[in-house]
Amino acid sequence: MSEQKSKRLSELALFHSADLTGADALIHGVGSLKSATSGQIAFLSSHKFVAALNDTAATAVVVRNAIGLPDRMSYLVCSDPGLVFARISQFFNPLPESKAAIHSSAVIADSATLAPGVEVGPNVVIEAGVMIGQNAQLKAGVFVGENSTIGAATVLMPRVAIHSNCIVGDRCRIHSGAIVGSDGFGNAWAGDHWERIPQIGRVIIGDDVEIGANTTIDRGALDDTCIESGARLDNLIQIAHGVRVGRNTAIAACTGIAGSAEIGSNCLIGGGVLIADHAKLADRVSVLSGSGVPSDIDQSGVYASGTPVVPYQAWLRNMVQFKKLNELAKKIKQLEKNAMNPRSGQAESDDDQ
Amino acid sequence: MSEQKSKRLSELALFHSADLTGADALIHGVGSLKSATSGQIAFLSSHKFVAALNDTAATAVVVRNAIGLPDRMSYLVCSDPGLVFARISQFFNPLPESKAAIHSSAVIADSATLAPGVEVGPNVVIEAGVMIGQNAQLKAGVFVGENSTIGAATVLMPRVAIHSNCIVGDRCRIHSGAIVGSDGFGNAWAGDHWERIPQIGRVIIGDDVEIGANTTIDRGALDDTCIESGARLDNLIQIAHGVRVGRNTAIAACTGIAGSAEIGSNCLIGGGVLIADHAKLADRVSVLSGSGVPSDIDQSGVYASGTPVVPYQAWLRNMVQFKKLNELAKKIKQLEKNAMNPRSGQAESDDDQ
Amino acid sequence: MSEQKSKRLSELALFHSADLTGADALIHGVGSLKSATSGQIAFLSSHKFVAALNDTAATAVVVRNAIGLPDRMSYLVCSDPGLVFARISQFFNPLPESKAAIHSSAVIADSATLAPGVEVGPNVVIEAGVMIGQNAQLKAGVFVGENSTIGAATVLMPRVAIHSNCIVGDRCRIHSGAIVGSDGFGNAWAGDHWERIPQIGRVIIGDDVEIGANTTIDRGALDDTCIESGARLDNLIQIAHGVRVGRNTAIAACTGIAGSAEIGSNCLIGGGVLIADHAKLADRVSVLSGSGVPSDIDQSGVYASGTPVVPYQAWLRNMVQFKKLNELAKKIKQLEKNAMNPRSGQAESDDDQ
Repeated sequence: MSEQKSKRLSELALFHSADLTGADALIHGVGSLKSATSGQIAFLSSHKFVAALNDTAATAVVVRNAIGLPDRMSYLVCSDPGLVFARISQFFNPLPESKAAIHSSAVIADSATLAPGVEVGPNVVIEAGVMIGQNAQLKAGVFVGENSTIGAATVLMPRVAIHSNCIVGDRCRIHSGAIVGSDGFGNAWAGDHWERIPQIGRVIIGDDVEIGANTTIDRGALDDTCIESGARLDNLIQIAHGVRVGRNTAIAACTGIAGSAEIGSNCLIGGGVLIADHAKLADRVSVLSGSGVPSDIDQSGVYASGTPVVPYQAWLRNMVQFKKLNELAKKIKQLEKNAMNPRSGQAESDDDQ
Repeated sequence: MSEQKSKRLSELALFHSADLTGADALIHGVGSLKSATSGQIAFLSSHKFVAALNDTAATAVVVRNAIGLPDRMSYLVCSDPGLVFARISQFFNPLPESKAAIHSSAVIADSATLAPGVEVGPNVVIEAGVMIGQNAQLKAGVFVGENSTIGAATVLMPRVAIHSNCIVGDRCRIHSGAIVGSDGFGNAWAGDHWERIPQIGRVIIGDDVEIGANTTIDRGALDDTCIESGARLDNLIQIAHGVRVGRNTAIAACTGIAGSAEIGSNCLIGGGVLIADHAKLADRVSVLSGSGVPSDIDQSGVYASGTPVVPYQAWLRNMVQFKKLNELAKKIKQLEKNAMNPRSGQAESDDDQ
Repeated sequence: MSEQKSKRLSELALFHSADLTGADALIHGVGSLKSATSGQIAFLSSHKFVAALNDTAATAVVVRNAIGLPDRMSYLVCSDPGLVFARISQFFNPLPESKAAIHSSAVIADSATLAPGVEVGPNVVIEAGVMIGQNAQLKAGVFVGENSTIGAATVLMPRVAIHSNCIVGDRCRIHSGAIVGSDGFGNAWAGDHWERIPQIGRVIIGDDVEIGANTTIDRGALDDTCIESGARLDNLIQIAHGVRVGRNTAIAACTGIAGSAEIGSNCLIGGGVLIADHAKLADRVSVLSGSGVPSDIDQSGVYASGTPVVPYQAWLRNMVQFKKLNELAKKIKQLEKNAMNPRSGQAESDDDQ
């Protein structure tokens, strides 16, 4: 990938406002501390991994502080090694550019509009009225439904499906198997069967959004589902109809967000989180992996639920008690009452059992 | 979508057994209270949203009771506004009919049988022995495996895969990326490796079933997996081999149902629920989002498990205690024993710590 | 499927080291106790299902012990009926062999190398530099990205996507909609937006691995994601970047494994489990369905978390107490202190409320 590219450490230091410690070596790629080879640069994500510096073959390492580190290699010292390393890696591993070519097997409606520089892979289907922005890339097997718009430089990886009347912004990356604009789950009970509630809203995706593999984003029932600019969605996430995901919010895999929930900006939602319908989360809310969010969270901060694993026998014993937690609480109350008035309590305590 | 269609409110009232209050305006579409424009009809799902009536531009609103509501607009008054609104929306937003055309890029086996009126989109693959019912729609990239049957007026959205020997009933809607008839997860341990248990059952889907995007329904190991008529499945649901989902049961997204579980009719299963293998749920069981169902539920009713989010520090403190819940219960027991017989208990209480 | 094949029970007994009890009937297929017809063999998975023997039409049943069982049918008696039945079923239901043909609609790069006997279905896309092993089967709509390698006799079911630079071993089965080698979820916060961390690792899949429908396996950020030989993954599983799944480990559906987690060999991970990033699980660890694993598990054994369903009203009452579990624990402590020193405690106890 990065065969020809190379940079002096001094150039990288200058460009990324880092301080160079050690020899001004020529760098031609990135690697992990474990896998980096000579000529590559790695980074130290946390000082608790400092022992890995002893074994690495990396020529240089991006660190926060080089004091006391082995001096057989060079260091780029900066306040945010993760970000600087990400940017160095972007330099050595740029995203592939559009091939600006349309494969002969693609099926493109006459009324679709493709801006200059668009790449259309094999077996892509583009329906009527679609507009594709400049240098967008539609990889093999992508489907774009009627009247949808795909922004400039956006990449739809193989087998992504964008349904009709949706809007995807510029510079988005949507990964394989993701579905945008499927019908929301709208059913009205009619006494002896369900009736369909037509799902006539759209999905609106801002700029610079990333959507993970096999993630599903339903169109709105009436109002649109919105994923705001800069949001990051991992794999296998469910976004129901009418949900709003705020600017720069990041959501980890396997999370489900029910209908009309509104997630603020700059939130961090862990994996396997379930957020109830109509719940409103403020900006800068973090929810730890596996949590259930049944209602609004009005204050920014970190939230958690769920219970961590313990050995099975201990869990079984705890579960017996958990199922009667309310009884336990009553017993405590009674014991407290007894303690206040030692003579009257014992009979009641027995009643509660 | 609904450019030409329009109806007088008096016609809608008559057809849906509602009472009209206010002017008999001409209606040409539906919207939410928030987004509806002049000429559109909205609905009030709950009186707690009544304030939204002050700002809506809707010409009419479907409500349960119009007494005391602003009189600048019209109302359709009825006992089930959600259902009436769904039906009015169906009128203005009918499902697209079959295009009754077969795209030239489709790959259709000679022995497949297509009834009149079938739509086959680009890049569809239909294998040998398949039968497709009248007016069914197979959108772009759909795959139907050997000897499967697709019912009349059923719609398979882009990139749905129906594997061999499966049966899908009439008027079903299966959304993008859904997989029907993949192999069940059947493995027998052979001392030092897993051996495959052949999955030779089928998937049988009744009539009027809806299956969400990227949902997976495995074929039976020996007996069939069955989704009965009228069932509604949301996105990213896992239905394992040999599961039965009863008539009209609705299941929200991200739920997993393990092998041979049987869900009764008219159940409501929330999102992110996990149902254990061989568990049997009675009819009319509701399970709240995020619950774990380890065994049978014999009685209809509402069930829940899981724990809602709290601020992280409170959660941490609770977790410390949760992990020793059984110890806490023992202490309570000891305290109760002490209270009954104050002299003997203290030493034992110390032993428990 | 198994029209022509048949075997005498005595032949099956000899081949599988089982004892035959009863008539040496001719067997031509397998079924469940419920569905088997005359001439078929079933198996008794557990003696708790022994009543099903009264109603079965099976000609023979594989059992652990035939003593006391109805004598109108034959038995194959062996120490592991499940495994013997699996092997008998494999005989009657062999996997389909490669058709050793390339469909005319497939798009195959000139520089791709296909070994003899490869089957390539309709609309398959094989990019530059790909190598496909002998007798591999790529079903309809499969995508294989640049420079990836697919092992001999491996089957990629319809619409599987293998991204660039990945390696899939021999005799693997990857089910419909699975994604291998999508970008990991790597983002560095840059003060007011997320920046992409290039995902330049690969996915390496060993031999004899099974991967379920719509499961996603991300490529490594720097180091590779590895699924070792013999592992079994069910549907809708998320494997994040840099994860290692050990040899013969089986993972049930809907489970999510976060970045750089390492799962040992011969583990059994239930459905809907969430494993945190960088967590290390020892060999032979079992984790029950629905559990959250926030950190390392160093010892083999069975682990659980989560809470089983109870009726809703009971759950509500328990939740009130659960949210103040730490307070309850404090009260118990105070009551114990009071019991030790009865005069001093009551005022403090009130303070805690």
